[in-house]
Amino acid sequence: MQLGMIGLGRMGGNIVRRLLKGGHTAVVYDRDPKAVEALVKEGAVGADSLEEFVSKLEVPRTAWVMLPAGAITEETVGTLKGLMQAGDTVIDGGNSFYKDDIRRAAELREAGLHYVDVGTSGGVWGLERGYCMMVGGDSEAVQRIDPILATLAPGLGSVPRTPGREGRDPCAEQGYIHAGPSGAGHFVKMVHNGIEYGLMQAYAEGFDILRHANAEELPEAQRFDLNIGDIAEVWRRGSVVSSWLLDLTAQALASDERLDSFSGFVADSGEGRWTLNAAIEESVPATVLSAALYARFRSREHASFADKLLSAMRKGFGGHQEPK
Amino acid sequence: MQLGMIGLGRMGGNIVRRLLKGGHTAVVYDRDPKAVEALVKEGAVGADSLEEFVSKLEVPRTAWVMLPAGAITEETVGTLKGLMQAGDTVIDGGNSFYKDDIRRAAELREAGLHYVDVGTSGGVWGLERGYCMMVGGDSEAVQRIDPILATLAPGLGSVPRTPGREGRDPCAEQGYIHAGPSGAGHFVKMVHNGIEYGLMQAYAEGFDILRHANAEELPEAQRFDLNIGDIAEVWRRGSVVSSWLLDLTAQALASDERLDSFSGFVADSGEGRWTLNAAIEESVPATVLSAALYARFRSREHASFADKLLSAMRKGFGGHQEPK
Amino acid sequence: MQLGMIGLGRMGGNIVRRLLKGGHTAVVYDRDPKAVEALVKEGAVGADSLEEFVSKLEVPRTAWVMLPAGAITEETVGTLKGLMQAGDTVIDGGNSFYKDDIRRAAELREAGLHYVDVGTSGGVWGLERGYCMMVGGDSEAVQRIDPILATLAPGLGSVPRTPGREGRDPCAEQGYIHAGPSGAGHFVKMVHNGIEYGLMQAYAEGFDILRHANAEELPEAQRFDLNIGDIAEVWRRGSVVSSWLLDLTAQALASDERLDSFSGFVADSGEGRWTLNAAIEESVPATVLSAALYARFRSREHASFADKLLSAMRKGFGGHQEPK
Amino acid sequence: MQLGMIGLGRMGGNIVRRLLKGGHTAVVYDRDPKAVEALVKEGAVGADSLEEFVSKLEVPRTAWVMLPAGAITEETVGTLKGLMQAGDTVIDGGNSFYKDDIRRAAELREAGLHYVDVGTSGGVWGLERGYCMMVGGDSEAVQRIDPILATLAPGLGSVPRTPGREGRDPCAEQGYIHAGPSGAGHFVKMVHNGIEYGLMQAYAEGFDILRHANAEELPEAQRFDLNIGDIAEVWRRGSVVSSWLLDLTAQALASDERLDSFSGFVADSGEGRWTLNAAIEESVPATVLSAALYARFRSREHASFADKLLSAMRKGFGGHQEPK
Repeated sequence: MQLGMIGLGRMGGNIVRRLLKGGHTAVVYDRDPKAVEALVKEGAVGADSLEEFVSKLEVPRTAWVMLPAGAITEETVGTLKGLMQAGDTVIDGGNSFYKDDIRRAAELREAGLHYVDVGTSGGVWGLERGYCMMVGGDSEAVQRIDPILATLAPGLGSVPRTPGREGRDPCAEQGYIHAGPSGAGHFVKMVHNGIEYGLMQAYAEGFDILRHANAEELPEAQRFDLNIGDIAEVWRRGSVVSSWLLDLTAQALASDERLDSFSGFVADSGEGRWTLNAAIEESVPATVLSAALYARFRSREHASFADKLLSAMRKGFGGHQEPK
Repeated sequence: MQLGMIGLGRMGGNIVRRLLKGGHTAVVYDRDPKAVEALVKEGAVGADSLEEFVSKLEVPRTAWVMLPAGAITEETVGTLKGLMQAGDTVIDGGNSFYKDDIRRAAELREAGLHYVDVGTSGGVWGLERGYCMMVGGDSEAVQRIDPILATLAPGLGSVPRTPGREGRDPCAEQGYIHAGPSGAGHFVKMVHNGIEYGLMQAYAEGFDILRHANAEELPEAQRFDLNIGDIAEVWRRGSVVSSWLLDLTAQALASDERLDSFSGFVADSGEGRWTLNAAIEESVPATVLSAALYARFRSREHASFADKLLSAMRKGFGGHQEPK
Repeated sequence: MQLGMIGLGRMGGNIVRRLLKGGHTAVVYDRDPKAVEALVKEGAVGADSLEEFVSKLEVPRTAWVMLPAGAITEETVGTLKGLMQAGDTVIDGGNSFYKDDIRRAAELREAGLHYVDVGTSGGVWGLERGYCMMVGGDSEAVQRIDPILATLAPGLGSVPRTPGREGRDPCAEQGYIHAGPSGAGHFVKMVHNGIEYGLMQAYAEGFDILRHANAEELPEAQRFDLNIGDIAEVWRRGSVVSSWLLDLTAQALASDERLDSFSGFVADSGEGRWTLNAAIEESVPATVLSAALYARFRSREHASFADKLLSAMRKGFGGHQEPK
Repeated sequence: MQLGMIGLGRMGGNIVRRLLKGGHTAVVYDRDPKAVEALVKEGAVGADSLEEFVSKLEVPRTAWVMLPAGAITEETVGTLKGLMQAGDTVIDGGNSFYKDDIRRAAELREAGLHYVDVGTSGGVWGLERGYCMMVGGDSEAVQRIDPILATLAPGLGSVPRTPGREGRDPCAEQGYIHAGPSGAGHFVKMVHNGIEYGLMQAYAEGFDILRHANAEELPEAQRFDLNIGDIAEVWRRGSVVSSWLLDLTAQALASDERLDSFSGFVADSGEGRWTLNAAIEESVPATVLSAALYARFRSREHASFADKLLSAMRKGFGGHQEPK
């Protein structure tokens, strides 16, 4: 079927490519004409403006917005609302906040438009491996775009089937689900990213302990000079901690065991934060997910104010002068 | 080659089975004669006592101890020390504390015996999938038992090779490594389990947030009634959080989505604790791994004393009466 | 001066009492006529309705709302907005969310009304010890109510003056501050409560460790049977951890050392949650404050879903059966 | 009575001064002759060697060792054991590990010597305010040194007595307790310091949130430019979070509100670490105390390896380039 794509960055561009390879057609738009041009060469139909983009879509139209969450997505959805007609569908495939989805879906519904939120995992590997997708919205719209989702999803692949799932939603094992009404897709994707932070921090701490196993402060007989690249590799087979993140860790350590090429300044997308806000709203104790987010916050500071206040108190009661 | 195995529980028994299948021979001993009998039927040579066990091993002997860490392992290794001869090798394949390995290795070295510590991951799946092994000890002994390790390990299997590892230790991608001197094997396995706790808790908290997404305390328009079994399944393909632990989670939720058959009383082996002790010794901030261990401690209490003290303080300053 | 008080619960009633003792006058209203009656006997002027309440106030009117944060406060402020006139002042002395203050202040400003948010600490001890107050709002209104604040505040008392504060805002050492524009008072009070949770949890964990110092799992030679009531008492004098919360702890342990009269079900007001939301918005790593809030969440659950999921995974990879 | 003091640093010197002021006599020794000389001028009897020190003590001798925990304390106690006689008492007033106390007490007991461990809180303020002391050892020895303890302790002072303590150990409200057998004193002091870390971190995080209340990432209408020195001051009177640590915080902020004179590199003594080891041994979930210790560890690193590994994973799955 035909899909319109707005936003041809790393994610949007590759989604179009995977669709074209899968026999679908695409109309594409991006603020940057070169991005449009590139995909036109690969078989997509280009548009120079949102107006032209909408006019080139077959009715009922399906427009996928793949832009950074926040103002730019908000504005684009608003513009589409003005340009599109009852029965058309807007898909937000970015990392929007689920409460924004709920609000926008209600706004579009008033104009007879469908709104579908798609949480999309897969990153730069999605073109080849497929995208894991969590979808929120009304059933009519979600069913209409099923051919798109089925092509983008990884499919069963070589992953063994889960015993006991016979008779359940077959889409899930293809790599996409209709999670619920508007917002549900991004809600599930948000928690996915919250978990991702926790998993990453668990590995990061473990490898940090391994790497410091020969620290000078340890008794000499207990120091180990470990090859952490080999350790990451060995755990990939047969161990309880094997995972895709471990695969990536093994790759990173294979090329730069000391990780000297990395700054250690760790960004975070909004989803880790929203996950904790959700946990707090639900009274769920999320100690690990919180610790993981805070480690990122801390990675971006030198000599935090909190630390200085600790030093000030220590000087106050004990006369301690901290080293610089 | 021939291996002697002491301790024929879930792990020890299956290790012998995998070796027999791989063309090795085994002498086996267990306190429980029925466990010995069972393996004799499968092709092993049985022994009724440690003395007989040692006498049936070919020189230089190789005895693998697969018993609970602590007193019983300590005692068995001590007995073997008295029964074996210079040049023989004792393997501790259990979950011993690495500082105990360092001490024991030194004690056995005085008697000319080799001591090899093998951290073994794989659980009940090891027989079929192979065991991931992290080995500590002197190179002579570790090389001598290489045929055993190679058979027990999973091998390359269907796991893709890590780009950039060409020319490195080929054992690692077979699923076993010689991590370093005595204690190094169990040290690495210990941190492995510490990471395991962190990963498990990250998933547990994430699914807890998903499951409470329709909590009554939330605004009605923001509640989602999610199918968390489908969510676990969908993440298995193409997503950043895919892992073996997620596979197991999907299996558990496929058969009992509410997990009513579980008590929520979560045990911990010593290794999570030792990992934190190591982190503290090394001054490594292990916030996530700690939070994961503490969640287990807390799971085993009803109305902790700490909680009661909070209630007592709240009553003291605010007159609050907590509900029962 | 004259103050109108709406809400005569534990806090509102005692605030009126402290004002009457300090030579001020008060008009009081509560949904419960008995609460009004009780204070009329102590010298206040009573009102049967909000309309009567407003009519009895001298112009420019000053009305202090002391109700639970949320719907009831919102509704009451709205009603007052309709009844009062330009130049009048509404004080919200409850535990409102500071973003609600910012919004309400803007709404009242359109009608020419002043809005002052007062974060009030002191609990059941405020009548006798005075209330610590953090105030947000425009300077004109805050200055007008200064006589009220000065009477309610604890004053210098026996607390030693802070060296180096000469020439700074003298109100702070009396126990109240004008923290900033609307919302600032409740923002500061919110963080105050966030800190309070952290302090409480630090004591709670420490005493929990002391109380388990004779746990059976410890080597016998290392067990201590400690008198934790005496320990709380001894720390009150000369130690670094002395505080008012410790005083309360000592009192609680003096009367019930095992705290058997407490359930260990620990409630939380919204302020701890909002503090974390603020930390997350500001990218401040608040590991201790989060852990403290989550301990309360956890105290209110038996066998959490997260714990059950851990059990399910343990069964999956290791065949472990957790005890009930 | 007479006390011998070994180690005339900030703590040891002031303890002698407080004893001299209280009418006791003292024999003093330090590796640094100038430290001895200074106290001789204030009325103490000096010694040039441990031998001379012991010879100048009246039988039964009482020698207080006030040295850094670890090798130097161990060596000094060992030397004293050789020089002293049955019936004499060695006091370790430093911050020794309680398991070392248990061992040393047993060793000295074999020679008929008493060993008393005294956890001492008070820091640079102890000379004036008195020392809070937690004592472990046999009753005979602890009773013999009671006059010393009573003089060093703060006494009732202006701190209100705890209701409900009538008839209990009167020493506790004077500021010292006999906590239990050898090791109990340092065990209680250890947990005291663990709590101290938690309290400090709670304040540090709270003030960090206050200080970032005008962060640019916040919506402009929600930013507050707070005077955190005034906030620390106002909380000292009437609020739930008042404490001695808050007093010190207010002092620090009064002289340097931005704390620019502090490095934010926060040291830790061993006691916070041992507290967590104890919690782990006892299966007590100490989430806040752990987070507090880890914040100190983290304060001493730039760009931790764990952070770099997070960056490496992010690059691996998402192509993210972290800013330097």
